[in-house]
This record gives sequence, structure tokens and C-alpha cells, in this order.
Amino acid sequence: MIGLSSYAGVMESLMNSAEEQQASCPLANSWSKTQESSKNQKPKGVGGFVLVHAGAGYHSESKAKEYKHVCKRACQRAVDQLKSGALAVEAVAAALVELEDSPFTNAGMGSNLNLSGEIECDASIMDGKSLHYGAVGAISGIKNPVLVANRLLSEAQKGKLSAGRIPPCFLVGRGAHDWAVSHGIPPCPSEKMATKFSLSAYKRNKRKMELAEKMDTGHNQTKKRRQSSENEYGSGCLDTVGAVVVDLEGNVAAAVSSGGLAMKHPGRVGQAAHYGCGCWAENACNMNPYSTAVSTSGCGEHLIRTMLARECSAAMQSEDAHQALLEAMQNKFISSPFLASEDRVLGGVIVLRCCRCVEAQPSQNIQGILVEFLWSHTTESMCVGYMSAQDSKAKTHISRLPPGTVPGQSLAIEGGVCRLMSVAE
Amino acid sequence: MIGLSSYAGVMESLMNSAEEQQASCPLANSWSKTQESSKNQKPKGVGGFVLVHAGAGYHSESKAKEYKHVCKRACQRAVDQLKSGALAVEAVAAALVELEDSPFTNAGMGSNLNLSGEIECDASIMDGKSLHYGAVGAISGIKNPVLVANRLLSEAQKGKLSAGRIPPCFLVGRGAHDWAVSHGIPPCPSEKMATKFSLSAYKRNKRKMELAEKMDTGHNQTKKRRQSSENEYGSGCLDTVGAVVVDLEGNVAAAVSSGGLAMKHPGRVGQAAHYGCGCWAENACNMNPYSTAVSTSGCGEHLIRTMLARECSAAMQSEDAHQALLEAMQNKFISSPFLASEDRVLGGVIVLRCCRCVEAQPSQNIQGILVEFLWSHTTESMCVGYMSAQDSKAKTHISRLPPGTVPGQSLAIEGGVCRLMSVAE
Repeated sequence: MIGLSSYAGVMESLMNSAEEQQASCPLANSWSKTQESSKNQKPKGVGGFVLVHAGAGYHSESKAKEYKHVCKRACQRAVDQLKSGALAVEAVAAALVELEDSPFTNAGMGSNLNLSGEIECDASIMDGKSLHYGAVGAISGIKNPVLVANRLLSEAQKGKLSAGRIPPCFLVGRGAHDWAVSHGIPPCPSEKMATKFSLSAYKRNKRKMELAEKMDTGHNQTKKRRQSSENEYGSGCLDTVGAVVVDLEGNVAAAVSSGGLAMKHPGRVGQAAHYGCGCWAENACNMNPYSTAVSTSGCGEHLIRTMLARECSAAMQSEDAHQALLEAMQNKFISSPFLASEDRVLGGVIVLRCCRCVEAQPSQNIQGILVEFLWSHTTESMCVGYMSAQDSKAKTHISRLPPGTVPGQSLAIEGGVCRLMSVAE
Repeated sequence: MIGLSSYAGVMESLMNSAEEQQASCPLANSWSKTQESSKNQKPKGVGGFVLVHAGAGYHSESKAKEYKHVCKRACQRAVDQLKSGALAVEAVAAALVELEDSPFTNAGMGSNLNLSGEIECDASIMDGKSLHYGAVGAISGIKNPVLVANRLLSEAQKGKLSAGRIPPCFLVGRGAHDWAVSHGIPPCPSEKMATKFSLSAYKRNKRKMELAEKMDTGHNQTKKRRQSSENEYGSGCLDTVGAVVVDLEGNVAAAVSSGGLAMKHPGRVGQAAHYGCGCWAENACNMNPYSTAVSTSGCGEHLIRTMLARECSAAMQSEDAHQALLEAMQNKFISSPFLASEDRVLGGVIVLRCCRCVEAQPSQNIQGILVEFLWSHTTESMCVGYMSAQDSKAKTHISRLPPGTVPGQSLAIEGGVCRLMSVAE
């Protein structure tokens, strides 16, 4: 075991547009992956990295500042946890709480209202270390749905319930609410979760919907009208939130939370509560050289039917991270046979992949974790933020589709590399 | 296009125990797969094949007759549909209705009661042709949950709702119930769905649970007690139902329906409502030579976390069907890293895989579909039934683990081959 006395963070940004398909390979430098044996040399200090998103959808310039602020605060919350020695799964939950608490995001406080004017939220969390998972769907009256998902995860890790019953990993509706309250998570009156903005959006959407239905009945120009109003529901209100984290032990975790599509039917559950669709996290193992974590955003039905989180995670085991994500988004999402009947495929992902590395010149005795972080989306924009616990400088960015490209048919992809280093004594 | 004048069904059983890992390869005979071009030669007659299950769990000898009867009736319902020219997805729904209506199965009528003494059902259906999917979770007061799932599937195939809203593929709880009723599916009073048997089981389970909790508090021998009562909840009450169908056009479909674990928490959703976990169906395509359909049963949490339906479907693209399923059940279920902390992994699957074939001696001008059907389970037993629309003779079977093997750690695997032939004029 090598003694570890100091840490330093190095961050580089690799901003690659979708056109630059030849990404620079982050492993083709003086660092190389360690052998399996060194995986047991766990550093005991603090560190880690977080990448968050405030949704793939449409982020107006007027609200860009708010979206960036909340991403920054969410990164800070996760890093605070990492610095206090928390594992990745706790840090990712902390980031999500901050994102849910923002009235600007479509998660927790300020979520979209459904057809009946109620807020019903979906959330899930996955721990790459234990591979456990917790999720809630269509839950009302709970300020932070991710905390219920996280509690389901931790309760399941404790083993069987009385009389050998298997603990649930997925609860919905009233039952989910009651379970949360009985486990010490306070209820929140639904009226407190709606904001002035979400209420006025609901009224506006309701009027538009009624008008559209009246026109559908009166005339026969359905298709044209449906397309014209698609922006309102189809890509304007998809601001699901999520985060992916790696801690200095190399454990990854992912989480996602959403108020769902505006004007959804009551009881509708989107990808944020769906195993393999909303988030995914898997530590490296014998078969997989990389630890990977993914969180998605966008049209829930598209993300469910393509199982996008898990597909992206699986794809990230190939050598070139940028190329792997580009191909996954193109082949498993935009051109997916599961969405062949859809004219526009709307979604976005944030991805972390990590491996333990050593400096090629071993005289310096430097080792650490090489973190590659990426995001990609087919929606008009996606707001992301990221931060290393080692330099504590949050960066935020609103990624936009290249000019002239069509949302739902084209994609943007960007990312960077961060080295979490530990220098031996 | 070859004119088709007559059909004949040939069925062979390949009963292979788990020990006989060298399955006879059904393709190593006088039949061979057709070239891609002949896929367009769709026969216009009637035909097809159905395989159903009445759950992986424990089927007592005393109730074996009832389980076999309901499987037989379910096969007949699917075959009736196929003979009337219905596609696979309609036939599979018809089989499920029969299975749900039986008071002996844990689905629809006679479902397990939850902790609060209520019935909450999960169901889903997938169409291998359109790759569309519909699901309901924790739905109460609907006699046939699979019909709601099927209606969600067919409504989603119609395209967007008014004002460009995306139709839901997954609804839960009260919202699912209300959507069903508003789409013409009649409500059913919950008290009519409980049976004398399910009510007495609930009372017995409740007493046992209370006793176990009292003993857990009073003593410190939790582990022993938990194990001793595991049979009651862990494998005795897992009689989820499901079916897989191929029609004579070669389309596959799969469905599953469940009342969930006995004494589950209200709002708990199991694998039967979970995309990729409860059922899966995919027609052959450029990348996949075989059409595959899978339906699962067992402990929902285990089936969710391993995504068993989709994993088995993917595995079935390799040459030897029996070996592929054996390896999938062993590596992706019993030994899955996702269930590393579980001492017993409980579940079962039924699988269809199909390909278009021609007789090696083309002078006879025989072509058709080669159907391989298999089932495998780690529970003590699994009840299955199967039937070809061409000979209309249902066969039923209660598969049991080999003597001396341990449920949750060992598996049984069996299956057969059926040729759906069409002789050219």
C-alpha cells in the first residue's frame, strides 16, 4: 500500500462539436491504466468529481443565469459531501436535492403540473458500488423525491424485512408517499410545491390544449396543428434534472428526478423512475475496465423505450469515450428501431467514465483516477455543470445544437477530462 | 409469391434437464433458415404457436390440476385468436385474460393482497412487430390489467395526443384506473377480485408477520426465523402469469401480469410492469436473425435488477437456443453481480424464438416457421402450457427442479420445437 499525502486536481476541457467525430483520446498521453492489482490501493483522502444537468430541452437566454446558478450550487453540494468523506451515492443525492429545490427546474419544487393540475414526481438513484437501485414514480406531496428513492436503496441494502419479505426497490403513488412519511421524510403540501411560474404555465397549456382539441373536432387539419404546438410540450418543458458522481475510491453513482411532461395524464411514469432508463451506475469489475455513470433527460417515453441510460453505460466500455457516446446516441437513440415511428427523438445524457491510472514515469509515483465526462443531447439545449472536489471550481455551460440542425434529428456532444491525482509520500 | 394451400403442424418435445447441457440443435436437421429475401413471402392463412406460464414458484400437487387447466384454456384462447386471423399481440392478450380470470393464479382475480389488504396489480405487453410497449403498475379495481396495458400500447401506436402531447406507455395507481375507465374498460369492485383463498392467505400471512415481528423484537434470532418463514413469502406466492406468441406471419408478442408479492407495501411495483424485466418481444431484423419473445415470473426485485426478460431475449440470438438460455439463467440471473448479496435468486422464464425456414429438399416446396420454445426456472416449480394453432392440442407441464437441488441456486431447463409448415400449391 502506497501512503498518500497530497492531492491535486487537473482539469482539461475537450469541447468537441458533433462534427468533430475524431475525439482526442484522453488515454493516449503520459497516463496509463493501472493493473487490476492496484485497484485495492484505496486512497483515504477526500476528492471526487460531479457532473450535473438541469435538463435537456430548451433553455431560454433569459433564464440561462438561473439554470447555471442552480447547477453550480448542486455541484457545490455534492463536493461538500465528498469533502466530508461521503461516498458517491450520498454526494449524488445531495446534488439532486439542490436541483429539486430550485423553482426553475422541472423536478421537486416547481415541477410541471399534470392534466388534473397536480404535481406527480419521478426519481431514481443507483449506486455503482452495490449495484442497488431505488425509485419512486408519480409521487405527490414530497419535496425531494430523490430522498425517497435513496432511502429505498439504503433500506434494500439492509436485507430482508420481517418474515422474509423482500424490500421494494420501486414504489409509486400514494403508497410511495406513505412509505416515505413512515420512514421519517416529511410530507410537503402540494400547493407549496407549485410555483407562480408552474401554475401560469399550467393555465396557458390548458387553454392551448382545449383550443387544439376544439380545432381538431371542428376541422381536419390535425397534423399541422399538432406540429405547430409541439414546441410547447415536446421540447420546451423537459427540464428533468440529474447528476453523476465519482468519489476518490472510484465508486460511481447516478441519479435523476423529474416532474414529468407538462399536461401528462395522472399516474404517468416517465424514464426518471424507470430502471435502466433514467440513470445507471456500475463500478469497474472483472468484465468492465471502466466505472460508468449516466443520467438522462428528455421525453420519458423515448428514453424508456430505448433504455438510454443503460445503453450509454454499456457503450462506454469501448476505448474512445467520445466516439462511443456519439455512436450510442446516433444508433441507440436517434436511429433506434424502437423509435422508428417517431419523427423527432428528444433527449440528452450526461456521462462519467473513470479508471484508475498511473503516471507513465513512475519515478514521480503519481496515481489517481482519470475521469472523462461528457454530455450529448438532441434537444435544442442542455444545461450542465461540473466540479472537481480537488479545486472546487464549478463550471457551467449551456450546450446548444449546432446552428441549422434540427432538434430530435441531430445531436450535440461535448465533454472533458479531469485527473484526480494522489501523490505518494 | 408462392401460393399456400395447406398447413400442417409438427411438434417435437426436447425435454432436457439442467444436467444435459448438450442440447440437440433443432436447426441441425433437414430444415434450414431462409434467406432474407423470402421473409417477404408472407403466408396468408392462419396458424401460430403459444406458450404460457402460470408462474414460477411452488405448485402443490393438490392444485396441479387447476394450474394445468387454466394453462390449457389460456392456450386455447390465444389459438382461437390466431385462427380468427389476429396478430400475435392480440392473441397474447387473450391468453393473459384467461390466466388473470383464474382464481388460482396470482394475477387479476385472486391476486395476492398487499399489507393493507388491498389488491394492486402490475401488467405489461410488448409487440415485437412495432416494438411498442404498454404497462400498468399498482392498479386497483380493474379485472384484467393486461387489457389496460394493451390499450396503452395501441393508443400509443396512433401517434401524438392533442396539442402534440406524447401518449403515455406506463401508468400507475389511481391515474391508471381512471385512464382505463375513460377508455371503456369497466371498473371492478375490489372486493370481487379477492377470493376466499386470497383472503384467508392474507389473514394467515398477517398473523405470521406480526408473530415474526414480535419475536424479532423479543429475541435476537432474526436470521433463523427469517429463513424459516421464507417459503411462505419467498417462493410460495410467486404465481405471476404470462404468455409468448408467434403468429404465422412470424410476428412475436409477449405479456405478463401479476398481483405481486404477498404482503407487499402498497404502491410497490414489480417486474411485471417494468420495461425489459417482465416481458420482451422483438421480431427478427437485419441485426437479429431470430424473432424472440420472453415472459418472466418470480421475485420482482430480482427480475427487475437483472432485466431478465431483455437479457434472455438478447441471449437467444446465439446459435444454440438451449445452451444460450442455460447460460443466460446461470450468468445473468443466478450468478448476476446485480444480485451478489442475495442468497437465493428466484425466478423463471418462458422463451420463444422463431425463424423462417425451408425444407432442405426444395422439390417438396415446403416452407414455414421453426419455433423453439423453452422454459427455465430457479424456483421449486413452474407451470407451463403450449399449443400450436395447427393441431390445436394443448400440452401442459409442471416443471420441477431436479431432486436434491436448492431453489434459488439451481435451475431446471426444458423445451421443444414446433414447425409451422406451409406447403406450396
